[in-house]
Amino acid sequence: MTGPLRKNPLTMNEFSFDLSAYLNENKVLVEKFLAKILSRFDPGRELVQAMSHSLMAGGKRLRPVLGLAAAGACGGNPLAALPACCAIEMIHTYSLIHDDLPAMDNDDLRRGIPTCHKKFSEPTAILAGDALLTHAFSVLTQPDIIFDFYPTQEILLKLVARISDAAGVNGMVEGQMLDMLSLSFKGSEGIKKSGNKEALLNHLKKIHGLKTGRMICVSVEAGALSVGADSHQSDSLMLYAENIGLAFQVMDDILNVEGNPEIMGKATGSDAVHDKITFPSILGLDESKTYARHLVDTAVAAIEGFDREGDPLRALARYIINRDH
Amino acid sequence: MTGPLRKNPLTMNEFSFDLSAYLNENKVLVEKFLAKILSRFDPGRELVQAMSHSLMAGGKRLRPVLGLAAAGACGGNPLAALPACCAIEMIHTYSLIHDDLPAMDNDDLRRGIPTCHKKFSEPTAILAGDALLTHAFSVLTQPDIIFDFYPTQEILLKLVARISDAAGVNGMVEGQMLDMLSLSFKGSEGIKKSGNKEALLNHLKKIHGLKTGRMICVSVEAGALSVGADSHQSDSLMLYAENIGLAFQVMDDILNVEGNPEIMGKATGSDAVHDKITFPSILGLDESKTYARHLVDTAVAAIEGFDREGDPLRALARYIINRDH
Repeated sequence: MTGPLRKNPLTMNEFSFDLSAYLNENKVLVEKFLAKILSRFDPGRELVQAMSHSLMAGGKRLRPVLGLAAAGACGGNPLAALPACCAIEMIHTYSLIHDDLPAMDNDDLRRGIPTCHKKFSEPTAILAGDALLTHAFSVLTQPDIIFDFYPTQEILLKLVARISDAAGVNGMVEGQMLDMLSLSFKGSEGIKKSGNKEALLNHLKKIHGLKTGRMICVSVEAGALSVGADSHQSDSLMLYAENIGLAFQVMDDILNVEGNPEIMGKATGSDAVHDKITFPSILGLDESKTYARHLVDTAVAAIEGFDREGDPLRALARYIINRDH
Repeated sequence: MTGPLRKNPLTMNEFSFDLSAYLNENKVLVEKFLAKILSRFDPGRELVQAMSHSLMAGGKRLRPVLGLAAAGACGGNPLAALPACCAIEMIHTYSLIHDDLPAMDNDDLRRGIPTCHKKFSEPTAILAGDALLTHAFSVLTQPDIIFDFYPTQEILLKLVARISDAAGVNGMVEGQMLDMLSLSFKGSEGIKKSGNKEALLNHLKKIHGLKTGRMICVSVEAGALSVGADSHQSDSLMLYAENIGLAFQVMDDILNVEGNPEIMGKATGSDAVHDKITFPSILGLDESKTYARHLVDTAVAAIEGFDREGDPLRALARYIINRDH
């Protein structure tokens, strides 16, 4: 057996580890279950089509793959993390649909295809996002309908608590709110004008920590929780997750400057056009890259206590700053 | 002790029961806990202000009061139903915020005050709705932070499952979708043209059963679940809830024709302007009123097995067709 069920540590090490195969196997696994979740609804319904359009549009599936990798690193059966991983991907997708709306970022393309409101309509996109968010909690609380392996009721309840906390008013939604206020200069004009590099960096880290970081952290946490990780494992994984979450965003900002729009499936250069506060705009490109590498090194160091079952997490951390989209 | 803790059945009967006091006491109780939920967030945050603007805008609090009444009817401590009741009210409020958006119903007023997007902005309203929906599940899974009484973990997990099912892709969101498609004539033009009264009625019942009915039913169900009702009690309550849910919508349509806009806090007559399919447009006003009374009689008959602790539910059913807003 390969992929998430590969158990023999002798077949892997950080240098020989085949991340490309790992990513692909787990992406296929996650997408199989996302499709299974959607297959329970009449595909003729416009709401279901809109949910499917965005949920099945591909993407890296980074969050669920991180969750599966964290479960594996803790020595558990990664398949038990699938309900949480799918729920998190549904919530991530809803956030993209709402972010893309005309009233928000007004984006026409996402992952190389029309955004939900361009393909369907604005009200349909709002409702498709609402439905994906709501259904994520149905999936987590009735996993037996879809999945063969799932955590105990006690863990499932804790997963709902942790995931809703990360996604909500103290997490992702607030991050989106602060990002929007920054964009409109209401929130960060003072900081921008002050030109204080440290204040700017802290402001940026706060926004990204909420908007992107919390969901990346909870992906790793949910994977560990799903297989009953001990507190020592969880603490190490949280430090890992915080650092890769931030590295991920630094890299996103770098790719917005020098990425290839064709590979990325969306326009680049938009940050500069909007005069957005980004890591490259504060630190410059070179220092941003150094910073991203430092964050990944810190993340990898945080999980040095894990044996070779932690290799997927190590490789994923490196991948975050070596990706081209 | 009065209100939800009033336990002596001898103090109540259907005819002497003081619904006005009951409604007011329970509205105050629910609003106290909704305020407590919001008080955990910095009130200076725009996202929190937008959530609070809509959540604390008043309204009848019909859903939570029904949940408390159902818990009491089953002989339980209604306070144990408060987590579910507050979560449901938060979900109901998010649905109003999103329904009012320019891309949806484009309403300027709700409960006599500006809608969330008019008071704040469109993106803030989208995010405030998202945050209320998400936080409802945090409240349900960490009730100990806010409430003194709450159900077991097993029941809490079931509440998340039932409430997310009622609110989501197979419930309220799909109802909103079908309502929108009907409004735009895409969904019901054929039925409208056919003039088939029964087909029109069934179409309308389906939309309302999803859009309004599912959340009213789950309010009653959650109240019963929260206090560990037996299946006989639950079955009777579900029949009650289905009938009052439909009666509620028939009455809403009637009020849209002959209600007083000042008392209702919103414009009336909009259904006729939009040529919407409504109960009065199919059945006429008089037959609609007869139908609403019949539904309420059926609801009251469904709970005849309950003793005088069921009186609040009986009075609430009557209230639904006697209200003026």
